[in-house]
This record gives sequence, C-alpha cells and structure tokens, in this order.
Amino acid sequence: MAKSARRRAMFAFVALVLSAAGAAGIRADEGMWTFDNPPLAQLSAKYGFTPTTEWLDHLRLSSVRFNDGGSGSFVSAGGLVLTNHHVALGQLQKVSTPQKNYVADGFFAKSASEELKCPDLELNVLVSMENVTARVQAAAPSTATAARALEQRKKAIAAVEEESTKATGLRSDVVELYQSSEYWLYRYKKYTDVRLVFAPEQPIAFFGGDPDNFTYPRYDFDVALFRVYENGAAVASREYLKWSANGAADGELVFVSGHPGSTDRLGTVAQLETERDLVFPVSIDVVSRRIAVLRKYSGLGAEQARQAAGTLFSLENALKANRGEYQGLLDLKLMEKKRKEEREFRARIEANREWKTQYGDAWDAIAAAEKVNRTLYKASRFQQLRGSSLAGLATSLVRYIDEKQKPDADRLNGYHDAQLQGLELQLFSPAPVYPALDDALLADALQQSFEELGPKDPFIQAVLKNRTAAVVAKEALEGTKLADPSARKALAASGPAGLNASTDPLVVLARTADVYARKNQKAVEDRVASVETAAGEKVGRARFAVYGHSAYPDATFTLRLSYGQVKGYPMNGTLAPPKTTLYGLYERSAAFDNKDPFELPRRYTERRAALDLSTPMNFVSSNDIIGGNSGSPVVNRAGEFVGIIFDGNIESLVGRFVYSEDTNRAVAVHSAVILEALRKLYDAGSLADELTGRGR
Amino acid sequence: MAKSARRRAMFAFVALVLSAAGAAGIRADEGMWTFDNPPLAQLSAKYGFTPTTEWLDHLRLSSVRFNDGGSGSFVSAGGLVLTNHHVALGQLQKVSTPQKNYVADGFFAKSASEELKCPDLELNVLVSMENVTARVQAAAPSTATAARALEQRKKAIAAVEEESTKATGLRSDVVELYQSSEYWLYRYKKYTDVRLVFAPEQPIAFFGGDPDNFTYPRYDFDVALFRVYENGAAVASREYLKWSANGAADGELVFVSGHPGSTDRLGTVAQLETERDLVFPVSIDVVSRRIAVLRKYSGLGAEQARQAAGTLFSLENALKANRGEYQGLLDLKLMEKKRKEEREFRARIEANREWKTQYGDAWDAIAAAEKVNRTLYKASRFQQLRGSSLAGLATSLVRYIDEKQKPDADRLNGYHDAQLQGLELQLFSPAPVYPALDDALLADALQQSFEELGPKDPFIQAVLKNRTAAVVAKEALEGTKLADPSARKALAASGPAGLNASTDPLVVLARTADVYARKNQKAVEDRVASVETAAGEKVGRARFAVYGHSAYPDATFTLRLSYGQVKGYPMNGTLAPPKTTLYGLYERSAAFDNKDPFELPRRYTERRAALDLSTPMNFVSSNDIIGGNSGSPVVNRAGEFVGIIFDGNIESLVGRFVYSEDTNRAVAVHSAVILEALRKLYDAGSLADELTGRGR
Repeated sequence: MAKSARRRAMFAFVALVLSAAGAAGIRADEGMWTFDNPPLAQLSAKYGFTPTTEWLDHLRLSSVRFNDGGSGSFVSAGGLVLTNHHVALGQLQKVSTPQKNYVADGFFAKSASEELKCPDLELNVLVSMENVTARVQAAAPSTATAARALEQRKKAIAAVEEESTKATGLRSDVVELYQSSEYWLYRYKKYTDVRLVFAPEQPIAFFGGDPDNFTYPRYDFDVALFRVYENGAAVASREYLKWSANGAADGELVFVSGHPGSTDRLGTVAQLETERDLVFPVSIDVVSRRIAVLRKYSGLGAEQARQAAGTLFSLENALKANRGEYQGLLDLKLMEKKRKEEREFRARIEANREWKTQYGDAWDAIAAAEKVNRTLYKASRFQQLRGSSLAGLATSLVRYIDEKQKPDADRLNGYHDAQLQGLELQLFSPAPVYPALDDALLADALQQSFEELGPKDPFIQAVLKNRTAAVVAKEALEGTKLADPSARKALAASGPAGLNASTDPLVVLARTADVYARKNQKAVEDRVASVETAAGEKVGRARFAVYGHSAYPDATFTLRLSYGQVKGYPMNGTLAPPKTTLYGLYERSAAFDNKDPFELPRRYTERRAALDLSTPMNFVSSNDIIGGNSGSPVVNRAGEFVGIIFDGNIESLVGRFVYSEDTNRAVAVHSAVILEALRKLYDAGSLADELTGRGR
Repeated sequence: MAKSARRRAMFAFVALVLSAAGAAGIRADEGMWTFDNPPLAQLSAKYGFTPTTEWLDHLRLSSVRFNDGGSGSFVSAGGLVLTNHHVALGQLQKVSTPQKNYVADGFFAKSASEELKCPDLELNVLVSMENVTARVQAAAPSTATAARALEQRKKAIAAVEEESTKATGLRSDVVELYQSSEYWLYRYKKYTDVRLVFAPEQPIAFFGGDPDNFTYPRYDFDVALFRVYENGAAVASREYLKWSANGAADGELVFVSGHPGSTDRLGTVAQLETERDLVFPVSIDVVSRRIAVLRKYSGLGAEQARQAAGTLFSLENALKANRGEYQGLLDLKLMEKKRKEEREFRARIEANREWKTQYGDAWDAIAAAEKVNRTLYKASRFQQLRGSSLAGLATSLVRYIDEKQKPDADRLNGYHDAQLQGLELQLFSPAPVYPALDDALLADALQQSFEELGPKDPFIQAVLKNRTAAVVAKEALEGTKLADPSARKALAASGPAGLNASTDPLVVLARTADVYARKNQKAVEDRVASVETAAGEKVGRARFAVYGHSAYPDATFTLRLSYGQVKGYPMNGTLAPPKTTLYGLYERSAAFDNKDPFELPRRYTERRAALDLSTPMNFVSSNDIIGGNSGSPVVNRAGEFVGIIFDGNIESLVGRFVYSEDTNRAVAVHSAVILEALRKLYDAGSLADELTGRGR
C-alpha cells in the first residue's frame, strides 16, 4: 500500500458520481465520505446504525494525517500516535545512522528521554471544515476565459487560506471536492515536535516483502508509535481512541478514518483513456528504471543498502500498485462499464432542455482538452529534474526564493504564506542525504529524459550541454553544498540576488531546469486544467441535478470516513479468511524455509513458546480505502480501536477506478497482536499498558 | 481431485500431439508417459538423470491401481498399500454402519484381526505390456466400412484378452493409445482380498472441504492404508517403495507413478468445440442437480447425511473440476492456441503429397462426425437410467444376463469372459445400498430426462407411462428386491428366461430403459466412434510422420509416469510456497474460528503440544497429473517414497486441455507428516515403524 500521497494526474478530475448512487435499495460498502456528509442513510439501512455528531467529532479529532504521506490516530491520553511502520519508514530512515539501523533492527524508547525527535515530520488534525464554494466561484466573472478564471480562483483560494491562518493560527487549506463543484476550507491543528517511541524490525513489519505486498492472507506487524509534544511536553490528548483488546468479530461493522490519497472514480472516459494510454505506461517505466538503479546501488554494500531501503520500499510498493491499477484500465469490461455509465448520464442531461443548455457541452470540452494534454504530456513529465531527493530540494529552494518575493496571491500553489512553515520544515530538515545515491538516481533520470526527448530537445540542450547525463549528475552532486541544511538556509537567506549569483552546480542545474518545468506547468494549467476545471464544474452540477447530493468525492489526501464489515472473500478458487493468526506467520515462514522475505527476526523464533499462536494478527474488511489510508485506525460501533489499516488486497487495486464489495478488501493489523507482541516479544509492557489505559 | 475414472466423452479421441513436442531444447515438465516409452531424453537434458530399467520396473511393480478409481502403492514388505482417504472413501462408506461411522471418525486396526475386509475392492498391478497393434488392425480388412471395421477390431481385442487371460491367469486388458494408432495388451496382477488398516477422520483428510478442494496452499491428511491378502495371508510384497522420512526438498526432481483418468489434449478442434458447447454445460447441469438432491436428503438427519456423504464428496469434487475445465474451454486464448497448432500440423501434411493422400481428409471426417455427434448427444445422455447406484446395478445385471449368452466376441465391451470376474465383484457386492437415497436420486434424474426430452419422447413414454418421475422411482425402489445381493445372484442365475419373467419393478424399469441406451450406444458407435477411430488413426500416424514418436498419449486410467520439480508458483499477486507445514493447518482452522469445513478433529487440538508444528504437511510439484492420479506415490531419484498425490491446484484444471509449467501443480501429502501423525496423534507407531522398515 502506498504510503505517500499518490501520483498526481496531470488533469483535474471531474465530478462524475457512479450511477449506482442513484439506485434504490441497500448499497455496497462503498465510499470515502467527507465528515460533513457521512453516509447516514446507508448506515441506517444496512446496519441499523446512526453515528451521532459526537461520535463523528471524536473519531475525526482522534485521526491524524502524516504529512509525509499516510494516516494515524491518537491512541492514549499521553499523546501516543499509532501509524504503520511503513508510514514511519521515512523518519526511521532519517534518524538512523550507519551505526544504528532502526529500520532493520527496530526501536523502543524505554523512557521519555530515549524518544527520538523526528527531523521533519508534520502531523495534522482536522479541527474544522467550512464550505467556501460561493466565495471562490464568485472570484471569477462568468465572462472570463477559462485560463483567467482559473487564475482568479487560485488567488481567491490563497486569500481564504491566508486570512484563516492569520485569524486562527491553524494550518488552513482550501480543498477542491467533487472537483470544481465545491471548495472547502479545512483547518488543521499542526504538530511538528513528534518523537519516535516504538518500531519493530522491518522484516516483520513488511513480512513477505514485495511478493506479499497488496495481497492477503497477510502476517505483518506493520505498526509504529510516536509521541506528540507541544512546548517540550507530551500532549495530554483530549481526544484519543479507546483500545479494544478483542478487536472486531467476523461480520462486525467497522469504520476507517483516514486520508486516502487519490482515486480516479469520477473521471470521464476521455480522461481515463489518457491514464491508460500515457500516464500509467510512462509511470511504470519510470518507476521500474528507478528501482533498477536502487537495486544496483544497494548491491554495493550494506551501508548503501541501508541508505536505499526506504526509497526502494516506496517505489516497489508504487510499482506493484501501478501495475494492478493499469490492469484495471486494460480490463475491457471495466472500461465498458465506465462508458455505459457515462452514456446513460449524458442521455439524462440531453433529455432535459435546461440541463442540456447548462451542462451538455462539458464532456466534449474535456475530451478536447485531453487531446491537448496528450501533446503536452511527455514534455511535462521529462523536462524536469527527477529521481534525486537532493535535486528535488534544490528545485523547491529555487522556487521558494522566487515565489516568496511575489505578492501572496500571485505565487505558485505550495508557496503561499500559509504553506511556508510546512515547506521550511522540509527544506531545512537536518535529515541525512546521500549524495552518491542521489547521483545514481539523477544520472539515470536525466539519461531517461535524454532518451525520451532526444538530443535536440531544448531542455536536454540546456541541461546536458552536450555532456552525458552521468557527467552532469556527478558534477552537480559532487560539487553541491546543499547536503548541509545550513547551506540551504544560507541560500534561502541570500534571496533572489544570492540565488542568481550562486555557482553551486546543483543550484545552477535546478535553476536551469525549472524554467522548463514552470513553462510546462503553465501550459497544462492554461490549456488543460483550466478547461477541465470549468467543464468539471458543469459535470459536477449536472450530477447533483440528476442524482442529488448523495455521493462522495474522489480522494484528495484529506480526511474521509469509510464503513464496512470484517469479512473474507472468494479467492483463487477458495475462500480468504476474515482474519489470520500468529500460527500463519510461523506457517508462511516455515513454508519458505525462513528465507528472505519470509525470514523472522530472531526474537520471534526465540520467544515463540511464550506466544498464544491463536492471537489474531491481520484481518480484512470491506472498507473502501486506497493509498494514503495506511495507518488509519479501524474502529467499531463504540468508536474503539480494533485495528490499523496497512494494505489492500490485490483485488482492491482496481479500486482506483471502481469499488467491488465482492472482493475489495482493506487489510489491517489486529489490535490483539499489538498487545501480545509488545508484551511478549518486545518487553514493552509499559506501552501496552498505556494503550489499554492502565499506565502513564 | 476426482477419485474415479473421469467422465468419458462420447467420441474417440484423436492422436494429435502438442506441437511443442517437435520443438528443440529443454521441454517443460509435461507428460503422462507410458512405462514402455519413458521421457529419457527430457530427463537427461533437463535433470541429468537417466532411470534404469530396474528403476522403472521397481516403480511400476510397486504401483497399484484402485479399480473403483484411483491409485496407490505398496509401501511395506508386509503388503501395506497407501492411497488417499478420498480414494478409500467408497470402501469406508461401505464398511460403515449407522453405529460405526468410519468416514467421520476414522479407523485404525491395532492388529491383523481388526483389519476390515473391503466388500468389492479390486487392486491391479501392471506386470507386462505388449504391443498388439498389428493384430488388432489386421482384423479389419481395409475395404470394410468404418462401422464394420470397428466391430471387427472389437472382436479381435476380445480374443486377445481372452487368450491372454486363459494363458496367464492375469487380468488382461487391451488399451488403445495415441487413440487408434496403437493397441497394447496390459496384464495385471489382481488382488481382491484387501483389508482396511488405517484411515483418519474425513474432516482432516478433506480439511478445507469443497472451498479448498483443487486449491493450494493445503493442509490435508488425505491418506488411508490397506493391507493386501492372498490365500488368507498378508502378501509379502517383493516390490514396495522405501520410505523417505525427510521427503523432497524445494527444487528436487520427483516422479509420480499412477493412473490418470482422462485428458483431452489431443482432441481436434471440432471435438473440443463439442465438449465446450454440449458436454460440459450438460454435465455441469446434471451434477449440480444431483448435488442439490443429495444436500436435501442429507438435511433429513444424521444417518441420511452419513449415507450421502461419499457420493456428495465425489460429485462436489467433479463439479468443481468440471467448472474449472469448462473455464479453460471458454478461454479464447486457449482455443486459439489449439486452432493454431492444428492449422500448422495440417499445413505440414498438406505440403507433402504422400501424407496429404494418406491423412489429409481425417480432420474433415472428424468434424463431420462431430456434427452427427451433436444430433445424438441429448438422447444418448438422457435416454437411460441415471443417478441411482441401485438402478445402475439393475442395468448392469440386465446386460450381464443378456450378454453372457452370446459368443464372447459379440458381447458389449465390459461383458467379455475376461472381464466378468471384476464385474461380478461389483454386481454381487455385499456393500450396503440405501433405497431411500436411490429413490430421491432416480426421481430427479428421471424428472430431468423428462424436462430435457419432453413428454412425447419414446423413452419417456416407455419409462414413465404418463406417470410422474417421482411415482415411477418410488415404485421401483420400494418394490425391488435387488438391495439384497442374494436376490441379484438369484436373478443372474435365472438367466434370460428368469430376467424376462421377472416382475421386480426395478428390473422391469431397467429392461425397458436399456433398449434405448443400447440403441443410442450403437448409433454413436456406428456413426461417430467408428468414423473417428478410423480418422483418428490417420491423424495419429500423421503425427508420427511429422513429429516422430517422442510424445505421450492422452490419459486412459492406465499406468503413467510423470516427472517434475517440487516448486512454488506465482499466485494471486504473490507466491505460493513449495510446501506447507502443520503450523498452516492450525492457522487455517483458527482463521475460520475452527468452523466447518475448517474444524479440526478433537485429537488435533488435544494433542497439539506434542506435535512439531514445522513438520511439512503438503507440497506442490510441477508433475503433470489429473483425476485418477489420486493416491499416486511421489518418489525421488532414489525411488524412495516422498509423498502421495491427492490433488491439483485450481490452475491445473485447464490441464485437461493444456499443461503449463508456470502454474500447473500437483498437490501431495508429505511423507514426514504421515509418520508424525501416526505416531503422535493416532497412537499408530507400529504402522509408522512398518512404513520405515522398523517393524513387522
């Protein structure tokens, strides 16, 4: 399961809602619902359950967004936040050293003084939601061109965010929902003093490795615990989830509260076809190449393998997800279903004169914009620095300096005043960087750009200057000072003049490349996104007109509620069970003779006799989730913590486009195994006590 | 995995060999090879192994055919024969009573005196093979019509069998291989005093039930032990397999020696299309209906459930297999592959003038016969008594009396002198019959015939006589005396006059129905089988001409050798392991809260602590097998017993038509778990000692 907010498509999504939304009767356990619009009717009809406002508020305020991509929840009165090991992986990598490999070996702080402060982790809690659609839409006069209208709206959004930040001190993001049909101001309580408390060994957190990733049955202890501090003291969480040691039974109704990254359920057929024909094939190719570079680098030695481990995990994860999703797009039946839904929807619009006049031309407008999108795609993808995190930091730094001098409303998104604090946490992070690793990644990315764009491409000519990609990357990474955060701070402080005068070879490279990246971004905005924003708004309104407001928007890495049942499913000729147990962990290891990636950490073999092997380990439920939901709490009707999402099954990958209750399953770590392992394997009974309310 | 010889298609198969046989290089682990033509070249090239004649003879003479459908092997010097529980199931059912349910509860004879004699079990060991093609083919003058030629050959076959039986006292069967291209006389040592020694509880032998059937990973203890007697004493087996307690390692070369029932790999496209369009849809419908009847009957009470259990198992097994095979036929890619092979083969024949003259018209002849086959299919399927085993006995008895008075050469196959002893074992078996169960089955079968054929069909009019199917079945089953084996003997002794005078309602019904069944059989033989036998022989010779003799024939429930490696395979997004262990058994049970069909017999929970849970339980190998191979021994290079085949994975079902080494896997019980369970769960250490050569 992807731990980061997922690949962003180059086009704005459009608010089509699956026509099932209009059907009568009890619906499938589908949907990633905003907390202002929970699926009350469905819950009542299918499960006889109606969550109260207090129930919803409590769950929302206990839920946490990990801004480096993922979800989590407060699980103790003492500020403990639980997430996945693979969500924590980036921070684990950053606090590790060649001497202390917390990724491989795990970590446990026996006391507060041993807790490890994360270098650049920001957590968010969603404290309020406000509909600002009217204000944003009013910013663009109806006579404006699409490009001008988009620009005006962006300025209005920046103004709303800045006002709110100033007035409340809270992180304030305007979120586009039902694509351009609704705009909401989300305010977040933000935490940046976050300390690592516990993480198991990666081989058990990610037991089964890449083969088992996105599959089930699973046997993963994919958890990590952080503690949140404010003003130097652990926060006394008012809102946190009570622990259910027994977890959820087969068939029980459960909820997931988390931050699904992105879905393509509401795209028009024209948009899906671009995904199928361009976005996915190119992405799979890019990621495959990068994985090959990382594997080669890992082969150089144990320390190199340690440095590459986190990125390698993320990319292998993304590749397996992308391949599964791509298979969905290649499925003729799926595409035919999408076409049929669109035909029927359009027929309803055509049949009503007023609707036809207001919305009828939107689909063709999007299809025309997609034709343009296809012509821009390759340049927008390959005319930029890619692959290397240090080159990414350099690019962000160049933009940071450029944008900061402009009036707030004129800046690129991501560089508004309200967003700078989070950005600076990244830019000036003391987390280690590995220039040799970055060199290998940048060299291959530039080489691929060269191969894709050709030697006469202006970006290639400007960046490579007739040298090889390897020479350019080596010069930039060997010569740069930016690996040192103080050098990044000094450059930022030097302002535009300092930036232009800089001879740091990575800065020069980033400055040169960014001209093209900006140009491409603007072209896509002016010629594709603006058209699709306007047309998308029409489609969204048309949807509301035809089917009402009983639907959920595509995922946007903002807080969503999903519901479902703990239940098995038909799999490969037989049944996948609703849960697994510790027996299964030992089975899968023994079945592969304890060989990597099925090798157990030593404590699991040494202390096996102490364990109750029938303890539930992982379980599946029909909750509708996707990448970004990793680390989300699973709660029961009483709002108690029964598990933590860490994956979806292979059948759920098509969930990017369509949800199927028959086989789509979320995979979670069971609450019981967390206590069993903390107590009997990790000598961390104090943590187990704190989780169950006995300690601290 | 089907335990009985499988559904017999209505047409003679044709000797097409997959074109891969002609390709150079190392082949896949494909093939069910006759012992006179082992795949020496493939074994040498891929595994550097060349079995000696002694090695092959020893394996062949240790292998056993269970004539009620399945395979087994001698595994001790004291005459122990090991097979699957599900192969033994029919006999277990027959020796059980309402008071002693050995199917559910298992059985273990602590001493020879406790061993239970099976009522009608015949075991065969293949002692010689002789090519009699010339003699059989010479029987039909080349000027004969197809129908006449077939008749002449049948007479020649009967004569060969009778001569051999008289000369050697051995069971003598002429086997048609490469369909009509070769005829072989197989002589068998026959055993009919076979006694039950050990069987586990069905819930552990068939752990996972219908859902897990034909899937993997598996955790089944699907074994049973018989002891073979002659002249009142246990036979001292000269040839038996030495036991390997460690079993085979991942990647190791292993062999399977057993009796695959039937495959359709060499059928022409026209024949496969009939299977796809008629045979499979009808079979699936027939079996589904019968299962519904059995489930309803089982619901009446525990004793009814006991009576129906064996048949229900067989039919559910057949249904799952048929559905998987049917999916293969519906797979457009598979059928296109078959078409391409046939096109290429025919092009080779067309390109050679002599070949074209000799063989060129064979495919069109088969296609024309298939058109006729389709017109005959429904009548030949539904104009007969079906479903009830007692009605089946009555039909056999009618034929037995009719045929016995004819000269041997004129009789129907199955009723020649050489075959009568085996037939009589069945006809006069003391095994219990259940008239109420037979009533339910016969009533539904007649009802389905009525629905399929319509009220004006002559068979329906003759059999139902304007009464309902339920009335006719009830009258026949309530009124018959044939449930008593002595009544069957008396009827047989009364000869044709007694048969014609009998007023036993089931005898009257069988006599009436058999007129139609015989008529249909003759029509299929004269108009389809005879044409396809002649044309099949041409295709077979054409194959030899083009590709040489380096191939294996379709399965015929005769002894075959297959080879392969112990190895896992890609499954549902991840890897299936090469083996499972006892950990997995407890996992799968716990994952389903120990609910049926994942419920463990009590001794498995009570004695769990005594077990080494890492003991290998089941394993997979790439050996090419199919139904009928159940119970086959798996041996290593040293010819030692390492496991016993009990199933194939779901991906292997398409193996009826095509073998794929990537995913086609045979599933076996590991030799180690047999010893572990006998010693620690069943207090049967003496048996374990006998198997390992320590005891007896």
